Amino acid sequence: MNDFTSPGDHVKHIAESTVRRLSLYLRFLEDHDAQGHVTISSGELAKFGGTTSAQVRKDLSFFGSFGKRGMGYTVKDLMSAIREILGLGRSWSVVIVGAGKIGAALAQYRGFSTRGFKVVGIYDADPAKIGTPLNSLTVCPDSALESDIARLKPEIVVLCVPPEAAQTLVDRVTGAGIRAILNFASVPLQAPEGVTIRAVNMAAELEILTFGITNELNGLDEDVEP
Amino acid sequence: MNDFTSPGDHVKHIAESTVRRLSLYLRFLEDHDAQGHVTISSGELAKFGGTTSAQVRKDLSFFGSFGKRGMGYTVKDLMSAIREILGLGRSWSVVIVGAGKIGAALAQYRGFSTRGFKVVGIYDADPAKIGTPLNSLTVCPDSALESDIARLKPEIVVLCVPPEAAQTLVDRVTGAGIRAILNFASVPLQAPEGVTIRAVNMAAELEILTFGITNELNGLDEDVEP
Repeated sequence: MNDFTSPGDHVKHIAESTVRRLSLYLRFLEDHDAQGHVTISSGELAKFGGTTSAQVRKDLSFFGSFGKRGMGYTVKDLMSAIREILGLGRSWSVVIVGAGKIGAALAQYRGFSTRGFKVVGIYDADPAKIGTPLNSLTVCPDSALESDIARLKPEIVVLCVPPEAAQTLVDRVTGAGIRAILNFASVPLQAPEGVTIRAVNMAAELEILTFGITNELNGLDEDVEP
Repeated sequence: MNDFTSPGDHVKHIAESTVRRLSLYLRFLEDHDAQGHVTISSGELAKFGGTTSAQVRKDLSFFGSFGKRGMGYTVKDLMSAIREILGLGRSWSVVIVGAGKIGAALAQYRGFSTRGFKVVGIYDADPAKIGTPLNSLTVCPDSALESDIARLKPEIVVLCVPPEAAQTLVDRVTGAGIRAILNFASVPLQAPEGVTIRAVNMAAELEILTFGITNELNGLDEDVEP
């Protein structure tokens, strides 16, 4: 039933919206598995993911062939294939820079550890914040950032600093070897070749909602890859 | 230079990724305007938005015709047109349900008010949290939710409650008249016809990063609408 074939070159042409849906499918597969279900149909995944069966089949087809016509997908097989696709077949070390409200909330966010993301350090330049305990972590001085990156070898930096401090910190952490950054500062950032920066903006999420309300939609169109 | 025409029916077919980029363009236009620039090229917007000039022109063309060949866009005209498109020509009242770490951080997030989102209340069921001051707000008992929605008439609810409490709260707030929900609880939610729910998941943002690292990409493909 699980005919997962090697992804090959076509993986390079996957749109972000597909990856976002795969992450969503995985969440529902985990729930489904925890409830003791063995198989799931593309229709059920579509309902959970707020999309169509055709889109589910298309999303999964990018990575090989899954499932049997009329039989649905084996929950455990599909879970492990999607985990592999998303790079979740391993754990990842994360460092948070900026111990303000968002940084501190993320440092204590349980949703990270359950998906294999381990926060190994949180840093701030403000002497008033340094030394603050956050669960099992303590806020460290940002002057220790480069030496700690060399020692702890995190793969990902989550940047929760004020906009005016963000570019300097991108330069510092990429100089120290970081290749992946999640940016909560609402400012465009330049990174060297080979470094991925993703921007998260809370106001943008509300704007997508207000676009929908303003244009009297029940929801936006799904991104369908060409 | 600003030939903004009526959006018409085709607005209904706009993909979420387009709206996300419009929100990003607006952020950069505001910076550009604050720095005293009068015009901007599609190339500059593309660089800021991490996309191509062709994509910028395509994104803007959905909503009418902007700019003149070789002249670029008038910053102020384009800003006000995108604000209108995104429904930001007015202010929006927001209620936060759940005063945990994420809820409390969002209640104090300055990025909302600068975009016209005013948080008018924050609610929790935990007696230990009720009465906590958060900037100009105080955490209210969630038993006051329905009466406060009737009184304050917020358009948007931001849900920051544990997964097991989320569906009950969707039922309560939609029953009280709410039509737009931003959901931070990692659980699929059912809403009545005509209600928009957007899910935000911090772990998913990291998963999109790890997909990129795992597949050795510098970034994901842009979503290009068909």
